[in-house]
Amino acid sequence: MENKAFIGIDLGGTNMRAALVNTSGSILEQIKVSTEISQGAEQATENLLEMCRRLMERAASGQLQVEAIGMGVAGKIDPQNNVVVFSPNLPAMDNFPLGVRMEEALRIPVTMENDANVYGLGENWVGSAQDLNNWVGLTLGTGVGGALIFNNRLWQGDKLGFSAEVGHLVVEPHGLPCTCGSQGCLETLSSGRALMEGVEEAVKKGKLVGGKLFELWQKDRLTAQEIYFCAKEGDSTSLELFRRMGWALGIAISNMFMLLGIRHAIIGGGVSASWDLFIDPLMKTLQTTNRFLNAEQMTVRQSLLGDDAALLGAARLAWDCQWG
Amino acid sequence: MENKAFIGIDLGGTNMRAALVNTSGSILEQIKVSTEISQGAEQATENLLEMCRRLMERAASGQLQVEAIGMGVAGKIDPQNNVVVFSPNLPAMDNFPLGVRMEEALRIPVTMENDANVYGLGENWVGSAQDLNNWVGLTLGTGVGGALIFNNRLWQGDKLGFSAEVGHLVVEPHGLPCTCGSQGCLETLSSGRALMEGVEEAVKKGKLVGGKLFELWQKDRLTAQEIYFCAKEGDSTSLELFRRMGWALGIAISNMFMLLGIRHAIIGGGVSASWDLFIDPLMKTLQTTNRFLNAEQMTVRQSLLGDDAALLGAARLAWDCQWG
Repeated sequence: MENKAFIGIDLGGTNMRAALVNTSGSILEQIKVSTEISQGAEQATENLLEMCRRLMERAASGQLQVEAIGMGVAGKIDPQNNVVVFSPNLPAMDNFPLGVRMEEALRIPVTMENDANVYGLGENWVGSAQDLNNWVGLTLGTGVGGALIFNNRLWQGDKLGFSAEVGHLVVEPHGLPCTCGSQGCLETLSSGRALMEGVEEAVKKGKLVGGKLFELWQKDRLTAQEIYFCAKEGDSTSLELFRRMGWALGIAISNMFMLLGIRHAIIGGGVSASWDLFIDPLMKTLQTTNRFLNAEQMTVRQSLLGDDAALLGAARLAWDCQWG
Repeated sequence: MENKAFIGIDLGGTNMRAALVNTSGSILEQIKVSTEISQGAEQATENLLEMCRRLMERAASGQLQVEAIGMGVAGKIDPQNNVVVFSPNLPAMDNFPLGVRMEEALRIPVTMENDANVYGLGENWVGSAQDLNNWVGLTLGTGVGGALIFNNRLWQGDKLGFSAEVGHLVVEPHGLPCTCGSQGCLETLSSGRALMEGVEEAVKKGKLVGGKLFELWQKDRLTAQEIYFCAKEGDSTSLELFRRMGWALGIAISNMFMLLGIRHAIIGGGVSASWDLFIDPLMKTLQTTNRFLNAEQMTVRQSLLGDDAALLGAARLAWDCQWG
């Protein structure tokens, strides 16, 4: 195996990154370019191919053979047909046979998956979950994504193009409307968007009329990170939003533990940086809701790999598909 | 395999049943006796052993060899140590090493599991799910139980002694108190007990002051079945309870489909006989909540095997543990 390597790709709406990864899970080289999806799917594919060719040359110069390519894409993927079904952040890619085109051009196997699923594979391989067999992953970003790892493998269910859609678990059936059309999904309570909308709501209701948070909102400079800083300075509106985030995560994780008979969760994604503000209400809710597990049996960990989880997981996906 | 057979046992609080099952999934003979748990765990074990010995003799007379025994028990089981952890209906069995004792006495392997889990194995083997690989099972009785079948096998998670605790999925976090100590569990809305308590509640609130349903309550003759009959006659309180049952099942099943990326559910248990009253609100909720699956992709089926599901599933459990 020493001379084998894989390419992992993280294809996002803004940037795309690709890495050459060896079988020990080390990134040997990585490239990042802007996706420029506005130039169309064909151009984006060309840019991807160019990155792959550069990494394949780099591999060859080090006596390494790139065996396969794995790709994490933000959106609904059809992994069996290697097609992007739809991607809100990559609209030009809808129904585009990205994987097929790349295989034809590069003549090595290409496998695609949802970006949250490859994050799960990355953490499982060389991240927070190396010692775990069964666990659920959550990614907190603009929305909430998820991954299920069962017996050390990515669970893909009936291969319908989605699984672990944790963000759309209904936590409060009579709750806030979600972008998916449903109500009270986890995403309406525990995402970056939920934080932003929570501030918006507070302003609308006249509960937030001054102070730093209000000013940020007024100047249209509000971000999840700014809300975090306000909370750290004691702002009560912001603190309540993080408390609600933790509560909803606690309900969702408790349900998943009871359903799956497992006891480990790992939380990643940009918004997980606000860990210190949501972990206490999360654990409290989890411990009071779940009567099947003792507090000390359950672990909720923070992701270790950050942005690299997706790159490493995509490479691992390629590996698993070759020697599954 | 033709000369091999298994014994499946369904151990309940009132009765215990045992069946001799061949490798085609046919019941060759079955015995039912009252459990008489009040006489203690030792006596109940003796009664179980007696049933097994009779079925083993019956097997031998037909040139069949009983390879192993599987047992479904209502309660929390430790399958790795063959111990009943606790069982509300079999209090004398708490922490009793039932499986160990039976193995010592009969000198063949004995495996135990939760009763809802063996129901799942039964339906998967020769019932409603023969054509499915991945599905979730729900049993509607006094409470609500569940089973997860992944890749045609029973999912046991981290082997913590529980999995698929569907009845304790939180559907309404600010809802009714559950026996488990939590609030708004599926069981508080979709079980036989929920129907009974719903009538009680209607009387308390002065919403039910006369009619057949009220009389049944007054005479302490209320059962889930009687509530069903009242609903069929158009009683609005009863109809609303079944509508609520279907709604809550729809939320829970939708969440499980989104989490697991699967699309099939099978509903069994005594209360599933009220199918015609809850299936419409169930399907409507499922279809409006779940944005990842089209209506025609999802199936919710009724259990086929009735009481025999647990016996056949217990036999199958024994088989799987031998040639897993």
